[in-house]
Amino acid sequence: MNRGPLYPPIERLPAPFKSSELQQLLDGEHGSIRELVRRMISRPDFAYYSGTDTEEYRDQVLRWTRTVAQMGLGKIFLGRSVGGEEDLPKFMAVFETLSFHDISLVIKVGVQFGLFAGSIQRLGTEYHHQKYLSDAASAKLLGCFAMTEIGHGSNVQSLETVARYEQAQGCFVISSPTLGSRKTYIGNAGRDGSIATVFAQLEIEGKGQGVHAFLVPIRDENGVPLPGVTIQDNGLKMGLNGVDNGQIWFDHVTVPREHLLNRYANVTEEGQYQSEIQSAGKRFFSMIGTLVSGRISLAASANSIAKSALTIAIRYAARRRQFGPPDAAQETLLLDYPTHQRRLFPFLANVFALDFALKHLVNENAREQTGDSRQLETLAAGLKAFTTWNTTATLQICREACGGEGYLSVNRLAALKADSDVYTTFEGDNTVLLQLVAKNLLTDLKEKMKPMRKTRLASFFVDQKLAILSKRNPFLAFNTLNLHLRDPGFHLMMLRLRESAQLVSCAEEFMKLTNGKKMDPYSAFTAMQRPLLDLAEAHVEREVLELFVQKMMTIQSESLKSPFRQLCCLFALSRIELHRAWYLENGALSGIKSRAVCRTVDDLCAELRPIAVHLVDSFGIPESCLAAPIAR
Amino acid sequence: MNRGPLYPPIERLPAPFKSSELQQLLDGEHGSIRELVRRMISRPDFAYYSGTDTEEYRDQVLRWTRTVAQMGLGKIFLGRSVGGEEDLPKFMAVFETLSFHDISLVIKVGVQFGLFAGSIQRLGTEYHHQKYLSDAASAKLLGCFAMTEIGHGSNVQSLETVARYEQAQGCFVISSPTLGSRKTYIGNAGRDGSIATVFAQLEIEGKGQGVHAFLVPIRDENGVPLPGVTIQDNGLKMGLNGVDNGQIWFDHVTVPREHLLNRYANVTEEGQYQSEIQSAGKRFFSMIGTLVSGRISLAASANSIAKSALTIAIRYAARRRQFGPPDAAQETLLLDYPTHQRRLFPFLANVFALDFALKHLVNENAREQTGDSRQLETLAAGLKAFTTWNTTATLQICREACGGEGYLSVNRLAALKADSDVYTTFEGDNTVLLQLVAKNLLTDLKEKMKPMRKTRLASFFVDQKLAILSKRNPFLAFNTLNLHLRDPGFHLMMLRLRESAQLVSCAEEFMKLTNGKKMDPYSAFTAMQRPLLDLAEAHVEREVLELFVQKMMTIQSESLKSPFRQLCCLFALSRIELHRAWYLENGALSGIKSRAVCRTVDDLCAELRPIAVHLVDSFGIPESCLAAPIAR
Repeated sequence: MNRGPLYPPIERLPAPFKSSELQQLLDGEHGSIRELVRRMISRPDFAYYSGTDTEEYRDQVLRWTRTVAQMGLGKIFLGRSVGGEEDLPKFMAVFETLSFHDISLVIKVGVQFGLFAGSIQRLGTEYHHQKYLSDAASAKLLGCFAMTEIGHGSNVQSLETVARYEQAQGCFVISSPTLGSRKTYIGNAGRDGSIATVFAQLEIEGKGQGVHAFLVPIRDENGVPLPGVTIQDNGLKMGLNGVDNGQIWFDHVTVPREHLLNRYANVTEEGQYQSEIQSAGKRFFSMIGTLVSGRISLAASANSIAKSALTIAIRYAARRRQFGPPDAAQETLLLDYPTHQRRLFPFLANVFALDFALKHLVNENAREQTGDSRQLETLAAGLKAFTTWNTTATLQICREACGGEGYLSVNRLAALKADSDVYTTFEGDNTVLLQLVAKNLLTDLKEKMKPMRKTRLASFFVDQKLAILSKRNPFLAFNTLNLHLRDPGFHLMMLRLRESAQLVSCAEEFMKLTNGKKMDPYSAFTAMQRPLLDLAEAHVEREVLELFVQKMMTIQSESLKSPFRQLCCLFALSRIELHRAWYLENGALSGIKSRAVCRTVDDLCAELRPIAVHLVDSFGIPESCLAAPIAR
Repeated sequence: MNRGPLYPPIERLPAPFKSSELQQLLDGEHGSIRELVRRMISRPDFAYYSGTDTEEYRDQVLRWTRTVAQMGLGKIFLGRSVGGEEDLPKFMAVFETLSFHDISLVIKVGVQFGLFAGSIQRLGTEYHHQKYLSDAASAKLLGCFAMTEIGHGSNVQSLETVARYEQAQGCFVISSPTLGSRKTYIGNAGRDGSIATVFAQLEIEGKGQGVHAFLVPIRDENGVPLPGVTIQDNGLKMGLNGVDNGQIWFDHVTVPREHLLNRYANVTEEGQYQSEIQSAGKRFFSMIGTLVSGRISLAASANSIAKSALTIAIRYAARRRQFGPPDAAQETLLLDYPTHQRRLFPFLANVFALDFALKHLVNENAREQTGDSRQLETLAAGLKAFTTWNTTATLQICREACGGEGYLSVNRLAALKADSDVYTTFEGDNTVLLQLVAKNLLTDLKEKMKPMRKTRLASFFVDQKLAILSKRNPFLAFNTLNLHLRDPGFHLMMLRLRESAQLVSCAEEFMKLTNGKKMDPYSAFTAMQRPLLDLAEAHVEREVLELFVQKMMTIQSESLKSPFRQLCCLFALSRIELHRAWYLENGALSGIKSRAVCRTVDDLCAELRPIAVHLVDSFGIPESCLAAPIAR
């Protein structure tokens, strides 16, 4: 009775490379802190909460957050004057590795250290650093980042909360004038936070000075909201129920003048507004430029989540059999079905591609200190959108690939899916972010074009691209040789072509629409939303491929070269396949070559099949974090 | 302080048609039973459960299920001899309307009445009907449908549970020989069920007779598992936590000979196996052919869920403003952004298209009584896969379109998403179902081709299609006139072309692979998975469009003609757009025409914008069921 295993063992074929070597490569320069985090989240006190009681879950997540703080992980990026290491990339490596564990913890850590402490670090000055950062980093002082309002999420510039300077008392009075101006979805607000960085419209003697950040105490030491502060729990959410999100609103709450986080602008006792940044727009973007680090961290976290899901789904596919040839000794492994490979492996290539792109971005971000680099902002916005959507899609496919097992909470995909679904929305809605990317690209182009007459340069530019393409080889669109189809040079050319052609056509369209003031720029951008989003996507894909190819070139290990080539090629060709309609429309692919691209994607999937399990092993996700019985 | 509304009113422009008239049309012939269900689910005792305690939630769902039974809704499709109306379409209309409410209730109702009572009705004979059906229909006897095992979900033919006939005692002995043979995900098993329809391999004197269904009591009147029966709760799931799914396994459990549901096969007291169906394969498919009704009901339910989500997202978009022209009096409604329209409206067209296709299928199913119609099986499998995937995609877009609000449980999308995610898996995994569709189409083709030499007919067939296409108009691939692009004749031709070309190329590929026994059919089908899935999708889309166009032709109301034309055109063109790479590869679209198709989709979205709110109003979803504050 009841013989045999519940699940047969996971098939592990002889590996042509060491997954530990690949893991080392993925871990990169922050290997030791990643190992420390892995050990921490593997400890018995980090066993997942499996109940349904929200308060218990929040308690658990708060305890974990305090442990993270005790291990000194919350202060890594802070200044040395408050005991930090000023090492943002290292903090981001912690955040990324922590994302193999419970995602409520990840977000609570992000709110407490990244957003709350981070806002004081970046928007405040020495006074604030000394006064708050030690307690914030040790989680003694729990705080919120109160930016979003019910009426305004993406459009931060139009927030309605007001901070009026009262010269007589030398203080700011914070108020929520409308129902829509209530702060909402604020992490740490629902229960634990005692202070908040509040973004509000600064008003001095009736004159608006734009959005600024203020430190506003919200609860006393007993956790009771302070006078004038009303707090309401956001209630149950799709996921992340270990985080206490809430609404906060203010009825003439007074804070001293020193509570303005005054790195970029100050108000003197006499009510004089001072800022070294002259342009109000630039000042605003410097202040919310701090969101860039949040976007990067979130993208890295999303990619870790995709890695967990792929590990579960691919391991399950390497043990689960269903159907098979008549009279076969056993049924066929799911991993041997072409459809199954086709559904999972392009996403496997994506997480590798994004891993390297995000590491590059982390380093660029650390190098860039001014906070107003358009190039950095563009890449962060683009990668945040691309990565988080990729994770959402990966989770859906992985859940379906695990069938009914994927639906059971014990197999973890349910929580990963529910928790990460909001990633495409917070720290900037993806659709809005991609429009930002496209606008920045157009601005770059405009600046490049300044010395020449606009229309002429634009047409010169696209002509040149197409000329290069066809000059190289007039039969390019018909070249279906395998070597050519797998050539990174071909891939780069195709992705560059799509980006530059779309950039120029967007620029021309914009000029056409706005010429002679026919349309204001806002209306023109709105009318052009679809091509702008395509442009942004093309840009991100091209960036990711460039970085992947660059990384591939640096691989020294002989045994890793082949999987790198295959993954990079699969990433590139599956993007070309996805957009082959565009290439066909524009004559850059013939029908015959387009079909050859699809077949090569099939071939690459078949080639990855024997090493797929080793590839996911290389993510180094602790077994206790994977948790799923179907994957262990 | 805190002036103004939390959410501004939903914008409702003057309507060019009455949404009540459209609702009447959607409700169809079962309008009165739909109204009855709407009234029931709007009652205060049907207020949603908003807590997190699984037992409380299950209690609530069980109470609702009993109410559904008390209202006589569970017996509508049963035979008249047990008080039913023998009206399966009417029961499906109930199920579809109920899907505007809590989805755990929908599934519990599906398990208790559709699957459990349904299996007795369809697989049993008069003895079983008289003995069990009244109590099943009144929910006095709660039962399970125990088919799926841990090791075998999709491959029902390889189930491992055994039912051995013991002639001496005149009984069957039910056993679960392996761990993988445990029945799992069985609704009503976790807590409430006292009997189960168990699918097991019938064995008589050591000889296997294939899968048959047996009634097996599993709990006594106190809810304690009977001797030999072990039951284990499936635990928390991604959604549907109001349903008590569980595992069941059997250690030599004895049931009398009469417990075999013996409509298609019987075992005499002497252990003689008897069946009017000679072929074992055909017998098996007759028995699991009862799943067809389940697939149809589930697809209809999925479409209702998509309607709820679209209603919430479109109403929110008609009140939520974000960004806008500089110095405008107010920001722009989300519904006015082309991207927002583009993301939501094709799904709006899809639910209308699928509504009519599913109603057709419901009627075809009622007409077909033998249970082994290949055509019906094909359409049911195809529409189940297409509709449930469409619902999953719709929910994702709607959640994102509602931003952070969409993530809050109170706005209902979280539950709809989590509950319906498994629809793509149960009652047949979608990928497996689409392969079934493709195989059936190839079998149909083979039968049609019998009189002629195979290869010749195939090439004749595709030549003819392409000849017709180019004969009609040699410049067809370049015709970008608006009237042509919006012509249903053009749409039908394109969708038919894709289906028939893919059918023929799959047939040719299959013959090539299997010719001279190079490959067995199973391996050939496996190698061809990607083109087979494309073929199946092309088939379903063509069927849906045919039915939508047919429906459109019957519209009498002048004011409804225009929205029908727009929705039908948007459905067709967004499918052509999605597959435009295929058309470009095969010369059926030029680049210029392909771009014109995309632009026409843009135009249609803009045209639907003023009536989008009225269109979702026509679904007639009770306000209390929508529940979401952002949509009310």
